[in-house]
Amino acid sequence: MNEQVRPLGVALLGCGVVGSQVARLLLEDARDIGARVGAPLRLVGIAVRRADREREGLPAELFTTDAESLIARDDVDLVVEVIGGLEPARTWILQALNAGKSVVTANKALLAEDGQTLVAAADERGVDLYFEAAVAGAIPIIRPMRDSLVGDQVTRVMGIVNGTTNFILDKMHTAGAGFAETLSEAQALGYAEADPTADVEGYDAAAKAAILATLAFHTRVTLGDVYREGISDVSRADIAAAEAMGMVVKLLAICELEEDEDGTRRVSVRVHPAMLPVRHPLASVGGAFNAVFVETKSAGQLMFYGQGAGGAPTASAVLGDLVTVARHRVSGGRGARSAVYNELPIAPIGDVITSFHIALEVEDTVGVLAKVAQVLADHHVSIMTMRQEDANGTARLVLGTHAARNADVEATVDELVAIPEVFEVSSLMRVEGR
Amino acid sequence: MNEQVRPLGVALLGCGVVGSQVARLLLEDARDIGARVGAPLRLVGIAVRRADREREGLPAELFTTDAESLIARDDVDLVVEVIGGLEPARTWILQALNAGKSVVTANKALLAEDGQTLVAAADERGVDLYFEAAVAGAIPIIRPMRDSLVGDQVTRVMGIVNGTTNFILDKMHTAGAGFAETLSEAQALGYAEADPTADVEGYDAAAKAAILATLAFHTRVTLGDVYREGISDVSRADIAAAEAMGMVVKLLAICELEEDEDGTRRVSVRVHPAMLPVRHPLASVGGAFNAVFVETKSAGQLMFYGQGAGGAPTASAVLGDLVTVARHRVSGGRGARSAVYNELPIAPIGDVITSFHIALEVEDTVGVLAKVAQVLADHHVSIMTMRQEDANGTARLVLGTHAARNADVEATVDELVAIPEVFEVSSLMRVEGR
Repeated sequence: MNEQVRPLGVALLGCGVVGSQVARLLLEDARDIGARVGAPLRLVGIAVRRADREREGLPAELFTTDAESLIARDDVDLVVEVIGGLEPARTWILQALNAGKSVVTANKALLAEDGQTLVAAADERGVDLYFEAAVAGAIPIIRPMRDSLVGDQVTRVMGIVNGTTNFILDKMHTAGAGFAETLSEAQALGYAEADPTADVEGYDAAAKAAILATLAFHTRVTLGDVYREGISDVSRADIAAAEAMGMVVKLLAICELEEDEDGTRRVSVRVHPAMLPVRHPLASVGGAFNAVFVETKSAGQLMFYGQGAGGAPTASAVLGDLVTVARHRVSGGRGARSAVYNELPIAPIGDVITSFHIALEVEDTVGVLAKVAQVLADHHVSIMTMRQEDANGTARLVLGTHAARNADVEATVDELVAIPEVFEVSSLMRVEGR
Repeated sequence: MNEQVRPLGVALLGCGVVGSQVARLLLEDARDIGARVGAPLRLVGIAVRRADREREGLPAELFTTDAESLIARDDVDLVVEVIGGLEPARTWILQALNAGKSVVTANKALLAEDGQTLVAAADERGVDLYFEAAVAGAIPIIRPMRDSLVGDQVTRVMGIVNGTTNFILDKMHTAGAGFAETLSEAQALGYAEADPTADVEGYDAAAKAAILATLAFHTRVTLGDVYREGISDVSRADIAAAEAMGMVVKLLAICELEEDEDGTRRVSVRVHPAMLPVRHPLASVGGAFNAVFVETKSAGQLMFYGQGAGGAPTASAVLGDLVTVARHRVSGGRGARSAVYNELPIAPIGDVITSFHIALEVEDTVGVLAKVAQVLADHHVSIMTMRQEDANGTARLVLGTHAARNADVEATVDELVAIPEVFEVSSLMRVEGR
């Protein structure tokens, strides 16, 4: 490597689980990273809230609490943001982009909320904004979507993009336990946070779904566009019902492009628990692993699998982006602008077409099935499978529907519970990948 | 899109299964592709051997037999090579690169043989050379390796990268048939070519392994560096033995970075059939699908899965590259130079460390096992599992070894067959992923 080349300066904002790994690897693998960039990368400073805390292996003089001055330094070319949250991350990223510095961020919440503001700022100044680490940790999914598949038409993305919920649902299957006790166990093991809302209610997955949909369909999708149901209502009965049918329950993020007969296109983006046949490639994605299944017009089916979280895996994604944007600095170019050129409407969840599993606890008398079947027929919900189980005095009707409008199924269920012989809807869940 | 922007001209070399799909999609999806590039892409001409043949849906005036004049045209900015083979592909690609045109190619044979010459020419002129379609069809693997994982240290790549052999081995498992009859069936179905050598003897997979190893370890690996065994010697006994142990036989391409205690690093690259536990993520990759399993220092385990061949999937990869290099033309930059900066020695196959399955047909007398065990011990090959099966007069010894040097196992087998009570080595195969 030519030692005359000016080093590129890196400012790191945040030094938590991911940031400390990024800093460590930048120092540890400096030789390889420099060779790959074509110039040395120099860690100029690390902005943290408290600069006096001891951080193992990282020189104390790198730390500062003054992020804005660090970003503004002349010897800072590249800024890595791994603080998370909307503010001050947004202000600092915009400061960096407006100063002509390229930015690498792992901030899914900010990208899902206001990604286009950041993208516009990067385009305005002709600098890079990369965010591979924002979705599915170490798995290369942003770049394949943004670049590799850019000559193809993505029609569907279906992913397991939250490790915490995947761990909890896995445990509910293997231990036959309910949601609440499994959550407590996950918290005790450090797999779930003290306030688990972002994970278990699907907000984290919804942010990632918004980012994926934007890239997949070249149209702007934000967090508010994503229909969202978490896993806190997944019951032992749902898990048992899935197993009885050779399926597993997963929290899925699904982005779909639908096209009417007249060529009108809409996008639907949703996060919810769903039953998936055990033979589906996503069904065997266990524990803290993530996977994203992509369907396209030409490439067909693709799957990307790997670790979805954790310091080192996420740092791998951050460093891949950092080396890439640094190479652009050396070669004088920049990466592709985002190509968000469509303005596709978002389909409301009621219009989305999915199959459903419905289990009803009913009175064990003649004629109940006929009444139930009539309600489904009235709402144009077609039955694919039906099973009846008897249990001292009551009976259970287990129905599998063909693909139906979600609004029609909702109206069906409202009407079913009003039938006197129907005691309860004991399990209701969408079925995917069949 | 700004209509003032000058269109970028594309020359297509070759119009076979892949080329015709590329041409079709360029015409069919022109609006989307133009929006993503930021300028219209115009298909200027298609070089073929016979220009008079009717090609459905493609305007006759596009065809020419004069590739060199087409490449040289002033309105050609980008050249797509999908002819395959070493010549004239190499001459034409070099002509294009030297004329300052960016090149997209699917030519694995040429890249594995002489990739660095092409890379050097591209670097010399500051233009792009992209080749996502050369390995594993539609699966984005080159770009993740080249860009996404560029901040990480890849330690191992293990892939199923040849659909023909995967189809044949699958069939041998499901039908219990031998190699020769299964090959005939695959040929009749169009899954194997009339001359199947490149596929079944592992040359195709070896070319892909050389390309993957070069990118993974940032060191030059060519076809001649790859140890190669095909599947034509895989017997019914091998398949049966694998099944008895809960494994499947797959043709694997394996690239490994090994590091001695003193920090000396070597690379091993090999293609051979191997037994793989059914629970390994690669074990369930069936039929014409491909998958590549990657292990890295920080990201851990990753897997990329999709269609490995076929016109439309391969065209998806070509078009992804084409849109990317076209974007670079519009923005004035270029993609990352390849970063081949290591000069790592290639480990000979004898030094490679793997587990083995060995089945011996032996005389059913006392003391044979002791003799066999002594031979293994003499060569430092440690036994992990041993099973003895009786069958009228003879016995079968089925051995699973711990990881051992390949040269030691070879010497062991040579000595075993010299034992008078050992009639035959009925099955011998490496075991991976355990």
